[in-house]
Amino acid sequence: MNKIPKYLIIDVDGVMTTGQFFYDKTGKIMKIFGPHDNDGLKIIKKYFKIIFVTADKLGFKISKKRIVDDMGYKLKLLDENKRFLFLEKNYQLKNIIYIGDGIYDSKILSKAKLGICPSNARKEAIKACDYVTPSESGKGAVLDSCLFILKKYYKKEYSSFIKNI
Amino acid sequence: MNKIPKYLIIDVDGVMTTGQFFYDKTGKIMKIFGPHDNDGLKIIKKYFKIIFVTADKLGFKISKKRIVDDMGYKLKLLDENKRFLFLEKNYQLKNIIYIGDGIYDSKILSKAKLGICPSNARKEAIKACDYVTPSESGKGAVLDSCLFILKKYYKKEYSSFIKNI
Amino acid sequence: MNKIPKYLIIDVDGVMTTGQFFYDKTGKIMKIFGPHDNDGLKIIKKYFKIIFVTADKLGFKISKKRIVDDMGYKLKLLDENKRFLFLEKNYQLKNIIYIGDGIYDSKILSKAKLGICPSNARKEAIKACDYVTPSESGKGAVLDSCLFILKKYYKKEYSSFIKNI
Amino acid sequence: MNKIPKYLIIDVDGVMTTGQFFYDKTGKIMKIFGPHDNDGLKIIKKYFKIIFVTADKLGFKISKKRIVDDMGYKLKLLDENKRFLFLEKNYQLKNIIYIGDGIYDSKILSKAKLGICPSNARKEAIKACDYVTPSESGKGAVLDSCLFILKKYYKKEYSSFIKNI
Repeated sequence: MNKIPKYLIIDVDGVMTTGQFFYDKTGKIMKIFGPHDNDGLKIIKKYFKIIFVTADKLGFKISKKRIVDDMGYKLKLLDENKRFLFLEKNYQLKNIIYIGDGIYDSKILSKAKLGICPSNARKEAIKACDYVTPSESGKGAVLDSCLFILKKYYKKEYSSFIKNI
Repeated sequence: MNKIPKYLIIDVDGVMTTGQFFYDKTGKIMKIFGPHDNDGLKIIKKYFKIIFVTADKLGFKISKKRIVDDMGYKLKLLDENKRFLFLEKNYQLKNIIYIGDGIYDSKILSKAKLGICPSNARKEAIKACDYVTPSESGKGAVLDSCLFILKKYYKKEYSSFIKNI
Repeated sequence: MNKIPKYLIIDVDGVMTTGQFFYDKTGKIMKIFGPHDNDGLKIIKKYFKIIFVTADKLGFKISKKRIVDDMGYKLKLLDENKRFLFLEKNYQLKNIIYIGDGIYDSKILSKAKLGICPSNARKEAIKACDYVTPSESGKGAVLDSCLFILKKYYKKEYSSFIKNI
Repeated sequence: MNKIPKYLIIDVDGVMTTGQFFYDKTGKIMKIFGPHDNDGLKIIKKYFKIIFVTADKLGFKISKKRIVDDMGYKLKLLDENKRFLFLEKNYQLKNIIYIGDGIYDSKILSKAKLGICPSNARKEAIKACDYVTPSESGKGAVLDSCLFILKKYYKKEYSSFIKNI
């Protein structure tokens, strides 16, 4: 049977956010985080080690505020071009569920144990992944992912959760 | 015939707003409230006791500014996991019309006298509700709801309203 | 033949904007104005007297900044329930082209010489109007309107404009 | 065979952004820049001289912050009505790939060596262009454009890029 992956690695921009950047004349100042996603992560966080990654240096403080300070998860600044090797070396891709949306996420999505894309991800990423969520990023894609993951690896717990909501 | 419910309970985030949160590096700073909804509430507020609920602690001041200060309604901070029991105990669900969008609203939506979802609500909530509005949240879902409610419980007043606009 | 209406009256919120309101904890602080619309108004402003109306007291300074200070047009604060009578009394509806999106714009839209709605207007308004623009509000609905108006009342000028872009 | 154009000229508003303007009571204060586009430009910047143009005086500092300070490209303030002649005189349209979305971009789009529109561009611009991107502006239209350009003019490099992501 399927070995259950240990890590859930989530790209922030374009997965937890709409992917868009709000600029004023001082620079990048805001991002839009979606509803439902924090609810989803709470459901599965006892089953997986959840780590967020971002390549966005200029908007790092914004992402950190949401992911680290307000939601309580780990966030790692990790360039797209170093991401594959870093994840392989530190966690091994066969132990990882990865949620990403960008063109440079394709290789990780195809080599991870399970690769997931929001419905509005780049088509290159969508081609490479195993599951596309019904929702767009910033509109519930991560809750979709969490329910899919729970159903796939913890079927009994999923059934019991669905029955009780 | 149908007994008319006394209370209209409305979840704020994802019903009165798009559900999205704007973050800058200081935290959650903005929400988007939609058009038309305040118009709708004015039409039916003489027929129902209207109460807003929210589970969003971090954004409470933003919601309060719109709902309490600018629109003049009551707003109660109420965790999703306590919401069902609180509503049952204080108002009884058979006396309630509930508008919600989240996965944890499902039980309330199915047990309330009337359960309504915006068209972009979670599919788990949509399954549990009685009526799905044509509009998305933050784009008129609450005006849709108000017209549906007026038509259902105050048919004559609805006809007269529609004739006069 | 058709007498050409003298006035073009445009509702601001939901026509020049997406209709949405951005709130922070201090209140209503931002609106989204769309692209292309100012281009459209420049094309027809020599043929019509253009007046903007808004019912939004709390956001009046925001609308004024865009419409009056930055675009150079007149803006009048005008409650929805007084709008019909005010327009009839001051300009007569038979002399007016009206662009609106709300439920209370229905009567004006149907009595005006020409009534226009953005594609995302309330269905009650859309029923009452003569023309629905292909674009949504805040995404070019007013440029659509201006081209439609020019073609309808100044056919030769329209043909010449289209040929030269 | 096709001579390869030397310049890539990109309109900022409605191509790199959603085209929308955020206003508060002090004026135009924010724009939304999309994901993926900077990734795309990095792929082709060694093959073309990339220049950004904008007609937006009031929002120039916002665009400059993103395009010049954060992304490192040139940005020129250039009125729509002077744009055609300026581009012809300084670069010649036969040497230009142009990405634009507005009604006044039509002539440039049709006379440029290659004219590209985001899928949400004005229909007048779309009629005049050679290629419409699958993505909307502010949602990846420029990455789409860059991949299309690379495939068209540098087929081998494109194949190698696609194989390696």
